[in-house]
Amino acid sequence: MTVSGNNSQISADSIEKVRVDLNDRSYDILIGSGLLSRLGTLIPSGHPVNRAILLSDENVAPIYMGIVEHSLNEQKISSKRFIIPAGEKSKSFSALENLIEKILGNGVDRNTTVITIGGGVVGDLGGFAASIILRGIPFIQIPTTLLSQIDSAVGGKTAINSQYGKNLVGSFYQPDLVLVDSDTLLSLPSRELSAGYGEMLKYGVIEGTKFFSWLEANGKLVLSGDPISQRNAIATCCRIKAHIVSGDEREKSDRVLLNLGHTFAHALEAESGYNNSLLHGEAVSLGILLAFSLSVRLNICGMTDYQRVFNHLKSQGQPTNALKLMPEARNVQALLNRMAHDKKSKNGQLNLVLTKGIGQVFLANDVPINSVKNLLEDFLHSSNNFEATEFNLPR
Amino acid sequence: MTVSGNNSQISADSIEKVRVDLNDRSYDILIGSGLLSRLGTLIPSGHPVNRAILLSDENVAPIYMGIVEHSLNEQKISSKRFIIPAGEKSKSFSALENLIEKILGNGVDRNTTVITIGGGVVGDLGGFAASIILRGIPFIQIPTTLLSQIDSAVGGKTAINSQYGKNLVGSFYQPDLVLVDSDTLLSLPSRELSAGYGEMLKYGVIEGTKFFSWLEANGKLVLSGDPISQRNAIATCCRIKAHIVSGDEREKSDRVLLNLGHTFAHALEAESGYNNSLLHGEAVSLGILLAFSLSVRLNICGMTDYQRVFNHLKSQGQPTNALKLMPEARNVQALLNRMAHDKKSKNGQLNLVLTKGIGQVFLANDVPINSVKNLLEDFLHSSNNFEATEFNLPR
Repeated sequence: MTVSGNNSQISADSIEKVRVDLNDRSYDILIGSGLLSRLGTLIPSGHPVNRAILLSDENVAPIYMGIVEHSLNEQKISSKRFIIPAGEKSKSFSALENLIEKILGNGVDRNTTVITIGGGVVGDLGGFAASIILRGIPFIQIPTTLLSQIDSAVGGKTAINSQYGKNLVGSFYQPDLVLVDSDTLLSLPSRELSAGYGEMLKYGVIEGTKFFSWLEANGKLVLSGDPISQRNAIATCCRIKAHIVSGDEREKSDRVLLNLGHTFAHALEAESGYNNSLLHGEAVSLGILLAFSLSVRLNICGMTDYQRVFNHLKSQGQPTNALKLMPEARNVQALLNRMAHDKKSKNGQLNLVLTKGIGQVFLANDVPINSVKNLLEDFLHSSNNFEATEFNLPR
Repeated sequence: MTVSGNNSQISADSIEKVRVDLNDRSYDILIGSGLLSRLGTLIPSGHPVNRAILLSDENVAPIYMGIVEHSLNEQKISSKRFIIPAGEKSKSFSALENLIEKILGNGVDRNTTVITIGGGVVGDLGGFAASIILRGIPFIQIPTTLLSQIDSAVGGKTAINSQYGKNLVGSFYQPDLVLVDSDTLLSLPSRELSAGYGEMLKYGVIEGTKFFSWLEANGKLVLSGDPISQRNAIATCCRIKAHIVSGDEREKSDRVLLNLGHTFAHALEAESGYNNSLLHGEAVSLGILLAFSLSVRLNICGMTDYQRVFNHLKSQGQPTNALKLMPEARNVQALLNRMAHDKKSKNGQLNLVLTKGIGQVFLANDVPINSVKNLLEDFLHSSNNFEATEFNLPR
């Protein structure tokens, strides 16, 4: 798959527009600097907002909510604040019920618009709530983390977690607008910025070799905070995802490729207890390595591409060693059970996105459980993990 | 609007098929006798079922679940029972969470099919759960009450209740098949059969004069249990609703007409505490009378059509006097507040479906609150209620 974009001419004050093409549910992703304070003027004329529900978490709200409120006020749009605790625990049934009852108690009609300002948790919870309040009210996403700007805010997947796994309950629900203000990355903790790179690499590996090569050349600029490189990379990721989602909104074919590394990642996150020891993007970096490693072991992928991916992740400071991140979670059978429960499995089979190399990912429908088990055992119990190349030789 | 169907030739063992036309979400409603025991052979080939989640309530499960299980077993489809308490209280957040966690704990993949067997509560809860488990898994509806067979099981609306009102949280989610076995009406308590007639009358009033005239001639046969008349009436109602839903799945235009009487009905039900003192269909009968009465008072509808509707409801034993049904719930302001909270109001205005006569319903966007208030005061505090025709003269 090839989607152009990483050679576009982005200047300091331009707005990049990425269209997500889904018939009557189509919308734009706007990417630029200083967009938060211009929200009121950027709302599409086809989706007028009369009242807004602003949702954010306790970390993000103090920084950005005032700017958004002010921008809406200037357009005479009234708004009401709702602030949730930060972190994955807010993606629960009880948090959903609590939020929805508060919103309904505040009064809502079919034109009331939910505006989420924050990372994946805020977007997933707020988007899911918007999709089921009155069977669906308008929704605008303002992602403020690198990870949500390139992934969770694009494509309309919303969800909460079940006691049996992450994102097992949710909806496909497209927003009316996604606003990516790259200035918000300035306030992002460096570990979170770095974790977002895991998802960015995913697009590099899915798209072909062009974006991957661009990342090899410019990845350091993205993580060091260069605004033009960041916006360029974000726009490219959004373009790749929008292209895939437009062709397969409900994940019946190609969209599943975006799950590269995610079945591993979700299991690792669940076993680590969704706490701060392993961020989602970090789990995705590990998951991509595991998917490549498994592909090498199954004689599907050559060592050269694996080594290139490994070296790039390493040079970008991405995690490659699970022992350091989650020292307590080494139960292979528990991870396998999590993977079997994950929604990516059909008919009781373990389906995994594997790869023949960079730009050549595919869905494998019959991955031998034993190969996954052996991989995880080596991964969790070898002290050098993915450091030694011989570890990854086919066996 | 005119939809044919009430002159079709239905015999004792034929299956009536009503197609709900919604592009890739199209499906059939099958109506006939003895269909429950044939479920396994009636599943559409495009939607093969490998495993089934059977959902019913404690009243319906003992009568029909075994028949469904046996029918699935014969086709080598395994199934698992889930039984919820009967009644509106099961349409709650906690019941939803409880059900979904149990289903996920039992193991589920994207081909696992939820099959609901019961009335509106079972269908609404089970359909909503199916729509959000793994962001949507297949769903088959088997409505066993007259009300659900002609209304809630047709058209894909699912919902639970909020503390602020009925059906305020839910989704539009189309099933893969709706199976109406008219034999299930034999086990339905006569009060519930009678209550279903409220929704049936709604179609008679919406469709034109043809079905209304048919009901005037055959309504007594429907309520006395004549199977051919029942299947004929059910098929006609489903055909009318399918026609409307196909043109407006997400209730942005004509579908709103199906809410005739429902804004009143939901308020009355909420005030009566969703208990057995006022069934949904009974509230709909009252709501239709209120909508006609308000239309007469506003000089929109003539007395002749009002009188015809009133006389027919009366002759069918339908409730026309709220005092008898809900002696404690006479707070006009509370009812008005409920109506304002109801999802049918936009921009803070009170929108109501009114009528120029039988077959001439329309959405009024600016109904004076005071007219509704006066109507409700007379309705709730006059001992003769709708009995006296002079009560309904325009004022």
